[in-house]
Amino acid sequence: MLEQIKTIEDLKKLSLKDLPQLCEEIRKKLIDDVTESGGHLASNLGVVELTVALHYVFDECDKIVWDVGHQSYVHKILTSRGENFSSLRSKGGISGFPDCEEDERDSFNTGHAGTAISAALGLAKARDTLKQDYNVIAVVGDGSMTCGLTYEALNNVKDTKMLIVLNDNNMSIGKNVGSATLNMSKLRVGKYDRNKERLKRFLLRIPLLGKPTYKFLRWCKRRAKLGYVRNSYFDNFDLKYIGIIDGNEIKDLVYYFTKIKNNVTKPTVMQIVTKKGKGFAPAEADPESYHSVIRAGTSVDSLESADVIGDTLHKIFTERNDTVAVCAAMAKATGLSCIQKDFPDRFYDVGIAEEHAVTFAAGLAKGGVHPFVAIYSSFLQRSYDQILHDVALQKLPVTFLLDRSGFVGEDGKTHQGLFDLSYLSQIPDIKIWAPTTYKQLSRMIEKSIDENCPVAIRYSKNLLHDQRTFADKWLVSEANGIPKVYLLAVGARLFKIASDISSRFDGVAAVEATTVKPLDEDFLSSVESGCSLITLEENVLQGGFGQAVGSYLTKNNLSVKLYCLGVDDVFVKHASIDEQLVDHGLGYESICARVAQILANS
Amino acid sequence: MLEQIKTIEDLKKLSLKDLPQLCEEIRKKLIDDVTESGGHLASNLGVVELTVALHYVFDECDKIVWDVGHQSYVHKILTSRGENFSSLRSKGGISGFPDCEEDERDSFNTGHAGTAISAALGLAKARDTLKQDYNVIAVVGDGSMTCGLTYEALNNVKDTKMLIVLNDNNMSIGKNVGSATLNMSKLRVGKYDRNKERLKRFLLRIPLLGKPTYKFLRWCKRRAKLGYVRNSYFDNFDLKYIGIIDGNEIKDLVYYFTKIKNNVTKPTVMQIVTKKGKGFAPAEADPESYHSVIRAGTSVDSLESADVIGDTLHKIFTERNDTVAVCAAMAKATGLSCIQKDFPDRFYDVGIAEEHAVTFAAGLAKGGVHPFVAIYSSFLQRSYDQILHDVALQKLPVTFLLDRSGFVGEDGKTHQGLFDLSYLSQIPDIKIWAPTTYKQLSRMIEKSIDENCPVAIRYSKNLLHDQRTFADKWLVSEANGIPKVYLLAVGARLFKIASDISSRFDGVAAVEATTVKPLDEDFLSSVESGCSLITLEENVLQGGFGQAVGSYLTKNNLSVKLYCLGVDDVFVKHASIDEQLVDHGLGYESICARVAQILANS
Repeated sequence: MLEQIKTIEDLKKLSLKDLPQLCEEIRKKLIDDVTESGGHLASNLGVVELTVALHYVFDECDKIVWDVGHQSYVHKILTSRGENFSSLRSKGGISGFPDCEEDERDSFNTGHAGTAISAALGLAKARDTLKQDYNVIAVVGDGSMTCGLTYEALNNVKDTKMLIVLNDNNMSIGKNVGSATLNMSKLRVGKYDRNKERLKRFLLRIPLLGKPTYKFLRWCKRRAKLGYVRNSYFDNFDLKYIGIIDGNEIKDLVYYFTKIKNNVTKPTVMQIVTKKGKGFAPAEADPESYHSVIRAGTSVDSLESADVIGDTLHKIFTERNDTVAVCAAMAKATGLSCIQKDFPDRFYDVGIAEEHAVTFAAGLAKGGVHPFVAIYSSFLQRSYDQILHDVALQKLPVTFLLDRSGFVGEDGKTHQGLFDLSYLSQIPDIKIWAPTTYKQLSRMIEKSIDENCPVAIRYSKNLLHDQRTFADKWLVSEANGIPKVYLLAVGARLFKIASDISSRFDGVAAVEATTVKPLDEDFLSSVESGCSLITLEENVLQGGFGQAVGSYLTKNNLSVKLYCLGVDDVFVKHASIDEQLVDHGLGYESICARVAQILANS
Repeated sequence: MLEQIKTIEDLKKLSLKDLPQLCEEIRKKLIDDVTESGGHLASNLGVVELTVALHYVFDECDKIVWDVGHQSYVHKILTSRGENFSSLRSKGGISGFPDCEEDERDSFNTGHAGTAISAALGLAKARDTLKQDYNVIAVVGDGSMTCGLTYEALNNVKDTKMLIVLNDNNMSIGKNVGSATLNMSKLRVGKYDRNKERLKRFLLRIPLLGKPTYKFLRWCKRRAKLGYVRNSYFDNFDLKYIGIIDGNEIKDLVYYFTKIKNNVTKPTVMQIVTKKGKGFAPAEADPESYHSVIRAGTSVDSLESADVIGDTLHKIFTERNDTVAVCAAMAKATGLSCIQKDFPDRFYDVGIAEEHAVTFAAGLAKGGVHPFVAIYSSFLQRSYDQILHDVALQKLPVTFLLDRSGFVGEDGKTHQGLFDLSYLSQIPDIKIWAPTTYKQLSRMIEKSIDENCPVAIRYSKNLLHDQRTFADKWLVSEANGIPKVYLLAVGARLFKIASDISSRFDGVAAVEATTVKPLDEDFLSSVESGCSLITLEENVLQGGFGQAVGSYLTKNNLSVKLYCLGVDDVFVKHASIDEQLVDHGLGYESICARVAQILANS
């Protein structure tokens, strides 16, 4: 049936009773394709019925904004991208997130959590200003309800006509946290499902009267949910509330969406419960592990930076009781699960609340404990003001652990860690370190405790296994002959490439730039004049490592030639990390060409 | 009486009945000193009783975190800074915001709204981790309840012992907004005060029975407020609630604080109502105008950038109906009052919610209208991720209006606009313009509508009255003789200095760098080799204008000497703007010295 759905119009021609089968076919396609291509599986399996129902009921001109965006696969399959779906997250293929450039029915690009209601409210207000007529629907996970941006948006909805679907699966990426979020829906999936199914089975077993009674009760329930159920949380925002609805029950969804589409003029929140991983037993059992699956056949390093984070912190936490750890809804991914388990009183998962995570850590540090804040590079962008204004301005000793710095590959534009060197370097009184080996990462974590200032450690998912450790100075590799060209590399991948290049050419040395702020000024001032420096960074050039080196050279009047390689003022699309390196002039071959040219001219 | 209060111990020795007189004396001192020194007047007048009561009841080891911080004057007067108080906001004098370096009883530095509960929660958790014993009190204005960071913090308080004083004066800087915030306290100052006073007067007029009845009723009311009153908003966070209390009634405050200090172990919110500007008739009548008063005797320009913003937008809004304006709780200060008044349907004050303001604007732009987002430079730091991820990544045409860019003078460290060139330049697909004249500002606003990308216009409170307009190219002043040195200046103040210097020396030209991104590459590539460029910016050097120029020169192999002047990696304290320019090497004399040196060597 799925193969015949070429357009949304085809979908609308189906009868209501065909939809469950369509959902099953979509689910099968998701499992087949995503376990092959890699991507977000559990969340998409949960929203199959929701997505089908939305497109079945609403019109193509209506705008759906998918919060976080990684649950938009079904939407993509239904909006003419099903045939090409196996190209998901490959270079040139379908993006794993909504992308207006790919299809205009992706109404708004998303990636970071909590933006949907703000954006949808903007769309709705633009519609009203231009006196247009379409529906705006924000689909928001319950995890995003821990996010301040969502709250700020809810506080401004007032009487704007829009629909907010709160997709409640009791999960962010990890388990949900937060008092308000928990109170928001005391009734949860398990209990709700069980009771409903039990009653249905009981009634349908009664001959003659059973089925009409069931149908009557269902009618009553539906009317009640449409008109009389209230939710004290959303009452605060004067929003009409409908819920709680079984979000994996396609007929219910179609019923409620139809009612809402035809009758509701007020802003409405419809709370549904869905099961993350629905229909795929391993994902249902462990949705956190199936949140994101890797491409089939990808070779993986047995060790990841997150493991080193966990092991090192566990050792520190065992030795001293004045340390605490903070993460934002990603304990497992950041390596903090072992801290959560063994030191629950010194572990804080604050939800998808990166701003609070940082200001909270500032308070912790001011109170005399040492906080480790583990947030992915891209997500820490949210906390720029808090790092600057709450941590650095008071020079508070907080250790920031930025995983997924640099290129991140398949997740694409919204998730690249390509800005951290810039947004951090400009902040006074902060140190920025970048390990290339696991051992350095571990040492940096230990050493950061003794600094009397904030320290940001930025690293990629995998590092080198070499045994080099960290000593506050840049390490210069042995070169063949006297070096004329120095490759100053930040991070494991680029240092590996730099090392390979230095052994290929005479007169080229690789430098491991483990401290980005402050720079190793002793090294820089020792470079012989007439030599060339090439800075290599997985970061935008503006405000990054290369410019800092350039400033030092200019300020100290050093006659050393500088070449800065990095991402030149563009957003980087999904592709493999190797492809991204090559595309942005950071591949082995293009750096070799540059080196050869410099050597030839010198 | 105030003169005898040298320490908090002296305060505690006073009897309860002495406190009203003390409050009056403090109020008088505030009015006398602040109308002289300049500073935040209305908010401090409102919290006199609150601050006296907090220090009277709580201990010196207890930690008070003042959200926003500009209402901490009374706290400063009581904590041994009263004698020196007339130095408020002067260079080397008392800071207008809490500053731990100034006095450790300023428990946490604040400045931007909404940080207090996060920080206080951090302090409380640190206390519990270290098994210490003190009280933590966050004093938060109702305006900060519109802020997502506050929500994220409330969502994480759970069972942590702390007190949140919600100081409800129905104001941010302007009038409050937001559904939740309005629902939080349906009972407002005016009505509450009137009824209470009426009843009190009535009872006290009854002979014999009147006074005991009044006292009995007051006892009943106090017990009820302590035990039985609830607030649905705070119920969501499982917080104990006490309120609403008259926050200008010192005896009530002492009563409730004493009860809380002795009995309460749960996290508690105490909601008080205070009158902004209390005790100073002009400030009571117009608290927005008396929010911040300027130093006596300061000469003011009759025109401000905000006026030009208002006039220009008003003209645009009259001509076309597809424009909208967004601000964050500062309609008047950003110049948008006239839009609010005449185009209420196209004006949005979202509250102190800078993140939402920007993502909301992205939605508006995606929906086909052109948004103007007016947020001060320092506050827009909050929206770094939203500008990058929601606006620029989709290349949406949004105009950002950043007033108070560069040095801001007396407000000090937390309010300087010294990072915007850096945090904006690193974002792909954005344009950054910096006018030096009012006329340019106006033209830039008009022109930004026709750009197919985000445009950030950054400017200071005052600009030059010259009639130069904006033409996308840097304007080079006439020099005496062939220029050997070019002063590339961003912003009005620095361009004025550069112009003055260029007329003093032969061979020096002033360049008005009105476009910071993209740079005027035609100009840069036309500079004769052997010449020198001096970049001047009121911004940190890292990631700023000078580095962008440096990158261009390096990349294009231009043999031009570059000197970058700006703020070199420090936070800038309160002083006058002229003093700040001089302190950071941007004063007329120090630039002249630099120019003379370069000319002598060339």
